[in-house]
Amino acid sequence: MLRIGATGWVEKDIPACGPLDAICKPIALAPCTSDVHTVWAGAIGDRKDMILGHEAVGEVVEVGSLVRDFKPGDKVLITAITPDWNSLEAQGGYAMHSGGMLSGWKFSNFKDGVFAEYFHVNDADGNLAHLPEGMDIAAAAMLADMVPTGFHGAELADIQFGDNVAVIGIGPVGLMAVAATAIRGAAEIYAVGSRKNCCDLALEYGATEIINYRNGGIVEQIMEKTHGKGVDKVIVAGGDNDTFAEAMEILKPGGIIGNVNYLGEGDFVGVPRSQWGCGMGHKQLRGGLMPGGRLRAEKLAGLVMSGRIHPEKMITHRFTGLDKVEEALMLMKDKPRDLIKPLVIVD
Amino acid sequence: MLRIGATGWVEKDIPACGPLDAICKPIALAPCTSDVHTVWAGAIGDRKDMILGHEAVGEVVEVGSLVRDFKPGDKVLITAITPDWNSLEAQGGYAMHSGGMLSGWKFSNFKDGVFAEYFHVNDADGNLAHLPEGMDIAAAAMLADMVPTGFHGAELADIQFGDNVAVIGIGPVGLMAVAATAIRGAAEIYAVGSRKNCCDLALEYGATEIINYRNGGIVEQIMEKTHGKGVDKVIVAGGDNDTFAEAMEILKPGGIIGNVNYLGEGDFVGVPRSQWGCGMGHKQLRGGLMPGGRLRAEKLAGLVMSGRIHPEKMITHRFTGLDKVEEALMLMKDKPRDLIKPLVIVD
Amino acid sequence: MLRIGATGWVEKDIPACGPLDAICKPIALAPCTSDVHTVWAGAIGDRKDMILGHEAVGEVVEVGSLVRDFKPGDKVLITAITPDWNSLEAQGGYAMHSGGMLSGWKFSNFKDGVFAEYFHVNDADGNLAHLPEGMDIAAAAMLADMVPTGFHGAELADIQFGDNVAVIGIGPVGLMAVAATAIRGAAEIYAVGSRKNCCDLALEYGATEIINYRNGGIVEQIMEKTHGKGVDKVIVAGGDNDTFAEAMEILKPGGIIGNVNYLGEGDFVGVPRSQWGCGMGHKQLRGGLMPGGRLRAEKLAGLVMSGRIHPEKMITHRFTGLDKVEEALMLMKDKPRDLIKPLVIVD
Amino acid sequence: MLRIGATGWVEKDIPACGPLDAICKPIALAPCTSDVHTVWAGAIGDRKDMILGHEAVGEVVEVGSLVRDFKPGDKVLITAITPDWNSLEAQGGYAMHSGGMLSGWKFSNFKDGVFAEYFHVNDADGNLAHLPEGMDIAAAAMLADMVPTGFHGAELADIQFGDNVAVIGIGPVGLMAVAATAIRGAAEIYAVGSRKNCCDLALEYGATEIINYRNGGIVEQIMEKTHGKGVDKVIVAGGDNDTFAEAMEILKPGGIIGNVNYLGEGDFVGVPRSQWGCGMGHKQLRGGLMPGGRLRAEKLAGLVMSGRIHPEKMITHRFTGLDKVEEALMLMKDKPRDLIKPLVIVD
Repeated sequence: MLRIGATGWVEKDIPACGPLDAICKPIALAPCTSDVHTVWAGAIGDRKDMILGHEAVGEVVEVGSLVRDFKPGDKVLITAITPDWNSLEAQGGYAMHSGGMLSGWKFSNFKDGVFAEYFHVNDADGNLAHLPEGMDIAAAAMLADMVPTGFHGAELADIQFGDNVAVIGIGPVGLMAVAATAIRGAAEIYAVGSRKNCCDLALEYGATEIINYRNGGIVEQIMEKTHGKGVDKVIVAGGDNDTFAEAMEILKPGGIIGNVNYLGEGDFVGVPRSQWGCGMGHKQLRGGLMPGGRLRAEKLAGLVMSGRIHPEKMITHRFTGLDKVEEALMLMKDKPRDLIKPLVIVD
Repeated sequence: MLRIGATGWVEKDIPACGPLDAICKPIALAPCTSDVHTVWAGAIGDRKDMILGHEAVGEVVEVGSLVRDFKPGDKVLITAITPDWNSLEAQGGYAMHSGGMLSGWKFSNFKDGVFAEYFHVNDADGNLAHLPEGMDIAAAAMLADMVPTGFHGAELADIQFGDNVAVIGIGPVGLMAVAATAIRGAAEIYAVGSRKNCCDLALEYGATEIINYRNGGIVEQIMEKTHGKGVDKVIVAGGDNDTFAEAMEILKPGGIIGNVNYLGEGDFVGVPRSQWGCGMGHKQLRGGLMPGGRLRAEKLAGLVMSGRIHPEKMITHRFTGLDKVEEALMLMKDKPRDLIKPLVIVD
Repeated sequence: MLRIGATGWVEKDIPACGPLDAICKPIALAPCTSDVHTVWAGAIGDRKDMILGHEAVGEVVEVGSLVRDFKPGDKVLITAITPDWNSLEAQGGYAMHSGGMLSGWKFSNFKDGVFAEYFHVNDADGNLAHLPEGMDIAAAAMLADMVPTGFHGAELADIQFGDNVAVIGIGPVGLMAVAATAIRGAAEIYAVGSRKNCCDLALEYGATEIINYRNGGIVEQIMEKTHGKGVDKVIVAGGDNDTFAEAMEILKPGGIIGNVNYLGEGDFVGVPRSQWGCGMGHKQLRGGLMPGGRLRAEKLAGLVMSGRIHPEKMITHRFTGLDKVEEALMLMKDKPRDLIKPLVIVD
Repeated sequence: MLRIGATGWVEKDIPACGPLDAICKPIALAPCTSDVHTVWAGAIGDRKDMILGHEAVGEVVEVGSLVRDFKPGDKVLITAITPDWNSLEAQGGYAMHSGGMLSGWKFSNFKDGVFAEYFHVNDADGNLAHLPEGMDIAAAAMLADMVPTGFHGAELADIQFGDNVAVIGIGPVGLMAVAATAIRGAAEIYAVGSRKNCCDLALEYGATEIINYRNGGIVEQIMEKTHGKGVDKVIVAGGDNDTFAEAMEILKPGGIIGNVNYLGEGDFVGVPRSQWGCGMGHKQLRGGLMPGGRLRAEKLAGLVMSGRIHPEKMITHRFTGLDKVEEALMLMKDKPRDLIKPLVIVD
């Protein structure tokens, strides 16, 4: 990212490695919709000559003097969110906000990202995980952001055995939310989307019904499918500020909305007063950035290795070579109808 | 209530008592702001000749054949919310929504209320509690609605040891929220209000600072008091739909807003997108009707009997005789500055 | 059950139906190990001429005057535990202990069970659920006890995404615990058992490793498989009082043991002091009777209907006719190696 | 500590300060019963010439290059447990077990303690907190261990509004558990103890009844006081391995035992099978080391500064001068009947 609206390659020094840190080189990279937002929508404000990217699998090339568990040559998972683990926020259970709201998000936000020959990872022992032997590299790349973000949707919505759940939005994050909801014990899963390959994969990941918003209002469709009862939980992984009014309307009292969609525009999210039970309906609204760090990466990697989830099926386009990152990014920007997620194998 | 905007006395038959139910006569009664909303704002729609009132201490005069634990002559606490305990909602932990959102609220909503010579209580074993010997009758009357509603604010906000908390609104519900927050282990409690006797009582109940909105914006005042950090939790017990934007602004990431204020007007509660962390800030919005029923009444009665709380201090005006209910109700409507809560001793 | 150690058929009147209750006749029945304990081990003390059985699918033949949602001819799921929903315990979230510890368990404990031409269900609206159209009758029968008990093990152990879990005991309850653990989001599942058809089904239900206690100590085997780290959670669905010492030993700090095995003998369960971290290791010990009631039955039925679980695969022996219940019960008593669970189709 | 059974002064070098660490000198110190266990019972095994002590208020004399928030001259609270915040255990919410069960406990366990001219604190930004201006130095010293340990008992037992609670043991940790239980919203608090000044302070801190075990069995006394119902929660802050059988017996189904007593001897803690509901009674057993770290210290300090708790009242004996630590330690060993807690002001 050269500035808002412009991308290109820049030459930079290899970043310095502090005593707790690591320098890595990429093995595989994936561009994310939020990279697109950052460049073309200016979602996080202007940045000059900032390297983009926060989804990577890498190889360690240097570690700081206090790093115990990693050494040059180790292949590693790197979470998109890399907290400061001794911060007050992390001690309070919200490491992703270490140092301030959303400040656990450092790659391509406060510092250079991973679309580079070398990139810097703060707190290597806390924020890297060893790449399990035999793991599909595409699955590994999805563990940086798509899997933990989608899974956090299911955590925020607190899915319980037998819940009926709506997942609004089935791009890669929404698809992972569907998979998470299914292996969290939901019964019916209503996946809201329209693109064919996303819908097909949603069904494969455990959705029981596709709600196509091109066929009518999603509120009407879901209320009809649920015989007027609505759903126990809603995960929002797409849409905009107005989506929450629909989500509130289909939600039962005692239900929860879990949002993992980054809201880039508008002043207010509107909570409809009467659907919210005049403030008394016990319909919770939650939303949060994915938890990062090593433990999380190891646990989600365990789900891949034990065959519970198959995030590699989301990769619709593959490239080889670091220089192909720009092409992959443009694909995310243009979103052809057959795209779910592109992957660039660097090495 | 004769119709929206008009009150008066009506003659009705003594209600019939089903096998699980009880008929009670009032010992003490208290009018509530929501009675005022019901009549003069038409908050729940029109009602014709409906008896008002949901805050009472009573004496049992008749019980149904399946009632085990109560008999005529027993003096009882009666919770304002009287759920159907075998409903799906109650089985799911949200008894106050048994049969539909807010439908655990029956008195002066779906059926006649307690401002009567005799009134009907559904599921006597589940919704009455024995009046503890020696309990102050004013405290007992406050256990119907003010105490459980205020305490539910502290539960919704999930107060933890050492939290800094703002309580917005210190009418009787907000005052009970202050007391609940203090005995739930909060550190600093910023009570937002302006009326002198409410402020004095808030301090006595455990508030550490009064934030008077007449002296400037509450956001500015609280951010200054907290050195720009904001608070861990917010309880909303007053204000209107716009209050939530202020609450979001003073709330730390990972924080919770617990609402117990009935929102009677407007289409939307506005959640400010950027203060909400673009949907990613882990700031939860919760709100809910008080839990009713016997266990709750017994537990809160335990707090009165062990001297942890003193809700009777909120009673600023006392009347004697059922016929004085109308005068007490008018007082709630007119809200003179020295009023916190009136009480009518019937018997 | 005629007395401890003796079974046979007795002639009794059709039970009376209270205003909230239903009388049902069985469609399908299953004997349970606890029936065996009741008769031959005298686990709940002596009973004279008590009808056994608590696992049934039925048809309503009569309902009380206050029953709203069921009528004669309705086919229904019946949970083995049938709480009194307005009890203090139910209001506090522990309906299975309504009226006293374990007292939500009524069938073949405080009253006659379901192995009869007609049986009584208390609180029909609260404790029956409509049999979903098209549900496999064997799956439906498993919803009475095996599914909710096994699933409660996963709830007690509070399985989280990516947890490594040991399930000790893979009889029918343990198998359902394996299935629950898998669809709750565990990664590795170590199923401890030895019988071939149980092991095969455990793998099909989601276990990743079988730990055969005939091949060495389970502690040693699991510690080896986990590279000395142990597991995040343990579900106990078999074994005896000494099993908990092994469970504590393989459990990480911060872990939970969830027990759903009825412990019929011995004075003490021994918690090993040093493995428990000298009382400081944050290793929780939990155990509890299954939650019963309509909501639970509906939610678990949703898991069957959406294809998430297949409890009917546990049925290894099928019989037809009420008179075959005794034969099926003897099978449970003798436990041939090819038995998992028998089913009797009555009608 | 020279070796098991012997104490004395040793000369050592000033510890080295790593990049994240701090070197402090003591302002105030307090010996703890666990220091006594360490020396005279050999509870953690033999140690040679290890400096004792983990309760201190200090002044920073040196900080590492990566420390941001502290500088020489700062007066600080120091928690007895000083975790490695980027460890897997800390990321999972159990920082006190970072690096292995109980391994967050470093002072006078894995490294030299605080009874020294200078001592080392790992991760200064994560494990120190600024001493609030105006805080009583005795209260500050109690924030190292007594307050967080006692308060953790109330957290483990998950005290809810109106709970009736037994606190077994009212030494300084138990007294803080009583205070925590009171400001967490319990109703009746049965404090089990016998020493007069402990009993008096327990009542002042919020206990409603003293149960003197010299006057009869505590089970009998508490069952009588609760009319045979037992209590909702039990906090164990004293006694021995057999205490848990009594705790189980007085606990209601659905209740929790929260242990914060270090169990130094014996092989097993016995959980009585039938009182545990044959494994089905939903009576949870929990126990855990206090959470340490800066956030915790700041939050508990907030409770002192807002006047919610008064831990300084536990100091019965005061000394001046580092050389008086041995005398204070001997006092803890000998436990005269008028002792609750001694304090040594160093500077």
